[in-house]
Amino acid sequence: MTLKRSKISVIGGGFTGATSAFLAAQKELGDVVLVDIPQAENPTKGKALDMFEASPVQGFDARVKGTSDYADTADSDVVIITAGVARKPGMSRDDLVLINQGVMKAVTKEIVKYSPKATIIVLTNPVDAMTYTVYKESGFPKNRVIGQSGVLDSARFRSFIAEELNISVKDITGVVLGGHGDTMVPLTRYSFAGGIPLEKLIAPERLEEIVDRTRNGGAEIVNLLGNGSAYYAPAAALIEMAEAIIKDQRRVLPSIAYLEGEYGYNDIYLGVPTILGANGIERIIELDLTTEEKAALDNSAEAVKNVMKVLA
Amino acid sequence: MTLKRSKISVIGGGFTGATSAFLAAQKELGDVVLVDIPQAENPTKGKALDMFEASPVQGFDARVKGTSDYADTADSDVVIITAGVARKPGMSRDDLVLINQGVMKAVTKEIVKYSPKATIIVLTNPVDAMTYTVYKESGFPKNRVIGQSGVLDSARFRSFIAEELNISVKDITGVVLGGHGDTMVPLTRYSFAGGIPLEKLIAPERLEEIVDRTRNGGAEIVNLLGNGSAYYAPAAALIEMAEAIIKDQRRVLPSIAYLEGEYGYNDIYLGVPTILGANGIERIIELDLTTEEKAALDNSAEAVKNVMKVLA
Amino acid sequence: MTLKRSKISVIGGGFTGATSAFLAAQKELGDVVLVDIPQAENPTKGKALDMFEASPVQGFDARVKGTSDYADTADSDVVIITAGVARKPGMSRDDLVLINQGVMKAVTKEIVKYSPKATIIVLTNPVDAMTYTVYKESGFPKNRVIGQSGVLDSARFRSFIAEELNISVKDITGVVLGGHGDTMVPLTRYSFAGGIPLEKLIAPERLEEIVDRTRNGGAEIVNLLGNGSAYYAPAAALIEMAEAIIKDQRRVLPSIAYLEGEYGYNDIYLGVPTILGANGIERIIELDLTTEEKAALDNSAEAVKNVMKVLA
Amino acid sequence: MTLKRSKISVIGGGFTGATSAFLAAQKELGDVVLVDIPQAENPTKGKALDMFEASPVQGFDARVKGTSDYADTADSDVVIITAGVARKPGMSRDDLVLINQGVMKAVTKEIVKYSPKATIIVLTNPVDAMTYTVYKESGFPKNRVIGQSGVLDSARFRSFIAEELNISVKDITGVVLGGHGDTMVPLTRYSFAGGIPLEKLIAPERLEEIVDRTRNGGAEIVNLLGNGSAYYAPAAALIEMAEAIIKDQRRVLPSIAYLEGEYGYNDIYLGVPTILGANGIERIIELDLTTEEKAALDNSAEAVKNVMKVLA
Repeated sequence: MTLKRSKISVIGGGFTGATSAFLAAQKELGDVVLVDIPQAENPTKGKALDMFEASPVQGFDARVKGTSDYADTADSDVVIITAGVARKPGMSRDDLVLINQGVMKAVTKEIVKYSPKATIIVLTNPVDAMTYTVYKESGFPKNRVIGQSGVLDSARFRSFIAEELNISVKDITGVVLGGHGDTMVPLTRYSFAGGIPLEKLIAPERLEEIVDRTRNGGAEIVNLLGNGSAYYAPAAALIEMAEAIIKDQRRVLPSIAYLEGEYGYNDIYLGVPTILGANGIERIIELDLTTEEKAALDNSAEAVKNVMKVLA
Repeated sequence: MTLKRSKISVIGGGFTGATSAFLAAQKELGDVVLVDIPQAENPTKGKALDMFEASPVQGFDARVKGTSDYADTADSDVVIITAGVARKPGMSRDDLVLINQGVMKAVTKEIVKYSPKATIIVLTNPVDAMTYTVYKESGFPKNRVIGQSGVLDSARFRSFIAEELNISVKDITGVVLGGHGDTMVPLTRYSFAGGIPLEKLIAPERLEEIVDRTRNGGAEIVNLLGNGSAYYAPAAALIEMAEAIIKDQRRVLPSIAYLEGEYGYNDIYLGVPTILGANGIERIIELDLTTEEKAALDNSAEAVKNVMKVLA
Repeated sequence: MTLKRSKISVIGGGFTGATSAFLAAQKELGDVVLVDIPQAENPTKGKALDMFEASPVQGFDARVKGTSDYADTADSDVVIITAGVARKPGMSRDDLVLINQGVMKAVTKEIVKYSPKATIIVLTNPVDAMTYTVYKESGFPKNRVIGQSGVLDSARFRSFIAEELNISVKDITGVVLGGHGDTMVPLTRYSFAGGIPLEKLIAPERLEEIVDRTRNGGAEIVNLLGNGSAYYAPAAALIEMAEAIIKDQRRVLPSIAYLEGEYGYNDIYLGVPTILGANGIERIIELDLTTEEKAALDNSAEAVKNVMKVLA
Repeated sequence: MTLKRSKISVIGGGFTGATSAFLAAQKELGDVVLVDIPQAENPTKGKALDMFEASPVQGFDARVKGTSDYADTADSDVVIITAGVARKPGMSRDDLVLINQGVMKAVTKEIVKYSPKATIIVLTNPVDAMTYTVYKESGFPKNRVIGQSGVLDSARFRSFIAEELNISVKDITGVVLGGHGDTMVPLTRYSFAGGIPLEKLIAPERLEEIVDRTRNGGAEIVNLLGNGSAYYAPAAALIEMAEAIIKDQRRVLPSIAYLEGEYGYNDIYLGVPTILGANGIERIIELDLTTEEKAALDNSAEAVKNVMKVLA
């Protein structure tokens, strides 16, 4: 037999992890394993079973397994890491970094042990530094350790533009560079509706407002929910990246990639345009930046470096 | 213009309601409105926004709006009711019935006011009695007030059979009659894998075990989750029914339908095979039952009547 | 009942017409009627039946009807015209124009009679002049008579770019203006891969070769087939436009639109960027053109005017 | 890299072959190679290019290649054979058998040479004998050489039932055994709408008429088309089987399988219920037949044996 089903494991059975597992199963990308800590094993099994029970109705064939045993993830093609803690009141940013660094190290050991050929996609925040941690801990080649932020950031941007112009989300493209959040660098001159530059369609001040809203897109949801953070769009973003890899689609998507000289940076994970295929990051695309854009990207890299300094 | 986008409103922004909204948007069934009480307005808006932000990535065109204002639901084609409370420790079953009856009445008034031509699908438990309540309160013709239980019950049954036989969920059919839960009446002689009777493929005692597991399928998830109940499969079931109506597919699906003589019952909502199309329940299908099946269905109807006696 | 299934009629049961009908049915856009002349009624019925027989396997619910009786098209939401003759050896271009003009007039009379509220999409060549003919004959408002060329032309361009760069077709956008074929005006500076200008990714001479190949994309297929012309991509283009209208998606797609001053032209149908929704062409988008682009578009408009002079 | 794109080759670039290639590409089952004889190379290239040009519009990532060189099919996971001649006026049935046997042998040699691990699905008529020929010529294990007829026959039956009852095609199942065409054995007692036996829903004489129509389903299309035979539903059937194998779905589908004692037959290819997965036919399901059904199946086997006697 030359054929085998693909396999995706999602580490962390919270809302984003569970939603990612569900979206992967819906797309029949392969069999799906949802992993959480032993204390959360039963809820994780419950979510997985609930998803599997949805499959006859939605018409997808994918076994979804909930577990706390990494042996169940063996030979995964793609592993998505959503595990980690969120920043709580009274927790310093440095505390957050150190706690999640510990989680990344522990999780990565298990992934490497059971799926030595997998490509890993990291969502845990602060995502640039956490992806760096997973890269170092895994010993994997750089193309197989990737962070997610730009697909989500540009999805938010695209949805805001669709709403602003009252047009289909299908026809809007946007490029976002740099770190996730405050120091995000949206390249509005590379953003289009049906191929038409947004700058032709939206006044500059209004476009700037939409960029600001995008930059604070995560916080907007956190504030509305009151308790928790976004998970539908983050999960969709993770699964789009996973699909590109599993199907070797060679999609042009922004990734948090390990840079060795690209854009003038070294030994850092930063959001850049990439081609995603069977080998993970197949290529990093280098754009010519304006002086202003390069300064913003430097600022973003600086912010990532500052977080990395906290790493133990 | 002869064309208008279809519109689905989901009342209740909890996990099942939110997941239903998301699945409807994914299928581009129309625009989606997710409604909750004023105190939950911001989280509801947050969930809706998060879904909309997923749309450029997943490639669907559907505006999703979170609100506490029923005016936003105006002219819905289908309204799904997931609102209501779950039974809590110390709450009697009768208390649950009365509380949710109150919720149904309040919600139905608003639905009728804004969407007098909608078809309503009820999920709130105890679902048979709650569907009856909505029917009476709405004054809608019986074909436009429907309860959901059999699509979910048979989905669970089908997924268990798929697991047991290690075959695709796509090829398993099952018919379930009667009330939701304990008094569910699965017709195993009408259940098949690829058209082959399950009784040819699974030993009788094992099949009985799977039927029992199905009967307790909701409780199995509740016990695993520890805190909460199933929502992926229930939402999938609701949206399959809504899709059948919105696209006038004339699907043959089990529904909780108002009976006027069918199967020998009157003035009761009970799970029976139906054809779902643009008019809601287009037809109730009457099957010949064995003496044993009829007795089980009588038992189920009795249980529903007992709950209905509690209604104020 | 507020709901009704949408309805699409396709005039002309040749390869493009039949493939369009099949793609519409697959997407469950509504019920589909495939119409041809009485002499071709049986083959048309045969194709429709064959499609319907594929539906249980592909899992779509759409009745597909083959007919030569326009009464069957009554109350269509969208009507697609693929009818007409292809240019044969010895036939002058003017003969072709006059023959197909006659076909358009006859067909349009029937459409208007049975579906006075439909939006019409024209594929028949020479498409700019034929769309003009249908517009005049129908008496419909200009937004409800549309020609297809740019979706196909840009699809070809995008597939050539995907092949050139070895990347996903999903991430390439392109804008094409003007007439179909020789005088097509591709705006390469508005064409992108993942939002990145193609001019950054492909050398100018190579990009020019790809533009030339696109311009001759129809002829390339005709030459390969030896007998007949393209139908998969043209049908996909037609159905994307129809879907945008039926689902009111407000897609930003190039259409052959009636111009009343836009881009400086009057009383002519020409390919321009548009927003397609429930009202057909919801809006024409006016781009700033370079002097060179404007000259090319003038040339294209001139060519269309020359064809229009032939119209009886 | 653990991942590789799946690959499907379709031998024979006529309508069924081309449509199969298109449906496989649409589903993103993998890369698709369409093969025909050298004299037809250009049209085959033209069709493949036309499909690829449809991909940006339909949103699928699959390279489609037209060729006459079997080297392009190397390492296919699934190979579909549609090549061969149709019976023409004046051609005896035996002539047809011998001509197509020759085609099967030639084609199989090339498949085995380049894709020694592939699973082969045969459509060419007379399909039972042609599948037998491919099996013998290939030297492949029996599970990796499969014929198609039952998926198509039951699809036709299901569509006729959907039309008769005015219900969704999604909810109708049907089991068909035996040879393709005249000696087909539809098991109406194993055929259901939403799990409800058709015998409860349709009068016996009417059901018998529908069975007869199914038995002559191929001829019905041939007669309507006047020139050619069905291709939409046959292609859909082939691709459903290919998808089950490529995605290891373990679908329960009827296949023409090599029997070694099952149903009391030996050394013959005959239509029976099977489970299709990564290994091709994972299992043959043996049903208890009534005396009447067994007699019909004997009759069918006899007809196949008679065709096999003609084989050189």
